[in-house]
Amino acid sequence: MDRLSLNQITTKTWSVPEAVKGCAEAGVGWIGLWRDKVAETGVAETARLVAEHGLRVSSLCRGGFFTGVNPDGSPVDGIAQTREAIDEAAQLGTDVLVLVVGGIAENDLVLSRQRVADAVGELAPYARERGVRLGLEPLHPIQCAERSVLSTLDQALAIAEEHPADSVGVIVDEFHVWWDPRIEETIAKAAGRILGFHVCDQMWPLTDPLMGRALPGDGPIDHRHLRACVEAAGYTGPIEVEVFNTELWQRPGGEVLAEVIAAYRDHVA
Amino acid sequence: MDRLSLNQITTKTWSVPEAVKGCAEAGVGWIGLWRDKVAETGVAETARLVAEHGLRVSSLCRGGFFTGVNPDGSPVDGIAQTREAIDEAAQLGTDVLVLVVGGIAENDLVLSRQRVADAVGELAPYARERGVRLGLEPLHPIQCAERSVLSTLDQALAIAEEHPADSVGVIVDEFHVWWDPRIEETIAKAAGRILGFHVCDQMWPLTDPLMGRALPGDGPIDHRHLRACVEAAGYTGPIEVEVFNTELWQRPGGEVLAEVIAAYRDHVA
Repeated sequence: MDRLSLNQITTKTWSVPEAVKGCAEAGVGWIGLWRDKVAETGVAETARLVAEHGLRVSSLCRGGFFTGVNPDGSPVDGIAQTREAIDEAAQLGTDVLVLVVGGIAENDLVLSRQRVADAVGELAPYARERGVRLGLEPLHPIQCAERSVLSTLDQALAIAEEHPADSVGVIVDEFHVWWDPRIEETIAKAAGRILGFHVCDQMWPLTDPLMGRALPGDGPIDHRHLRACVEAAGYTGPIEVEVFNTELWQRPGGEVLAEVIAAYRDHVA
Repeated sequence: MDRLSLNQITTKTWSVPEAVKGCAEAGVGWIGLWRDKVAETGVAETARLVAEHGLRVSSLCRGGFFTGVNPDGSPVDGIAQTREAIDEAAQLGTDVLVLVVGGIAENDLVLSRQRVADAVGELAPYARERGVRLGLEPLHPIQCAERSVLSTLDQALAIAEEHPADSVGVIVDEFHVWWDPRIEETIAKAAGRILGFHVCDQMWPLTDPLMGRALPGDGPIDHRHLRACVEAAGYTGPIEVEVFNTELWQRPGGEVLAEVIAAYRDHVA
């Protein structure tokens, strides 16, 4: 249980002070923070609260959107925003910044993927100087057009390997990669580059491509198998439970966290 | 235009007689048939109508469900049903049977994938004796749990390659594979094994993982690029326009077919 981390999106009704207090009271030692929630409380105050409650920050979500477009199609300077996110990660005492790289720009998949590789090249030295590693998270192929032209772990790893291992790595999120027939061999290839392991399940039947996630145990994903894979590749760090689920997001944080702990114990640990 | 084939699902309101007549009147020389529609008209009568109107059948949809479960979770004998489908394909004068292999059985992805490989091994000789080739169609990873544990073209090709090239091949359907960072190299590897090329687009933004398809040109897919890839791999056969789209499915077949022809001309041919 000492590896369990609450990814803050899972308890969406909770502010940072509530989430930090909730984790401390429940004996959860790690938390994965989101920038929008941190902004509400303030970076310095968040760092203070985390320290006061004896928590550690497993990662900060998120930088990215390097292709220059938000999911709604509006323009965004992802490189500038990610520089700010790197600074924030350092202030919050985590060395992992999760990257969601952005969807298709100018209706051109090849161009968009090149922009991602270029942006990582530009930002890697900046992050390294601040002791922060960039965690490239491939998203499920269903999110390729709108959110992430990075669609497989293999593809993320190819970009990471152009940089030092203490500078750029990958995030293994079960929802995004469980279906991949090459996932075992790719996780093995990623040894030394795995910066995070995120667990959740896929709803079954699945109706919503973005929100169709569930607590571990409520879907087809074999969590202990994937955990064994990342451990065999040397990853023994925190395991974030990260669930996008509109029903869960309407319920009190404490209730949700109790279910997170039970699901983690029964299906992951 | 002589390569355009109407996949019958696109004009769902049309029966076989209506679809065959509609194609002939519109100058479309190929049709992709579905078993449920063929059953309404009868196999022999369908074959007669197709011949009478001078059409050719590009493929029959579909065999498969080898893992033993339907999308709704009910049991199914996919091997027996696929034997029937092979016989039907031969009677209809097409040498391509499209396979949708089925989702996860017994909550076990590894077991389910093995069942698919085993079933193809069992059925390949039966199909070959009847002059029918089995077309393994990988479906989008979002459909892995419910419909197809075959999730990438590379994975489909690995199964096909265990059998003679005139016996088992693959279907390249744009919706299912366009996001794959390895798609170009995998299509090249599939030379001599490509039994069909299905085109459509992905809705953008995407809300429905099954029905979120559109006519070519209405989404992020680069149709001419993918067409060039399959042609470079030696595939010069019919190109089916296959669109799952509830809005399209409520409109008169003739209207839809006119739009299919225009979309094909403007974005694929």
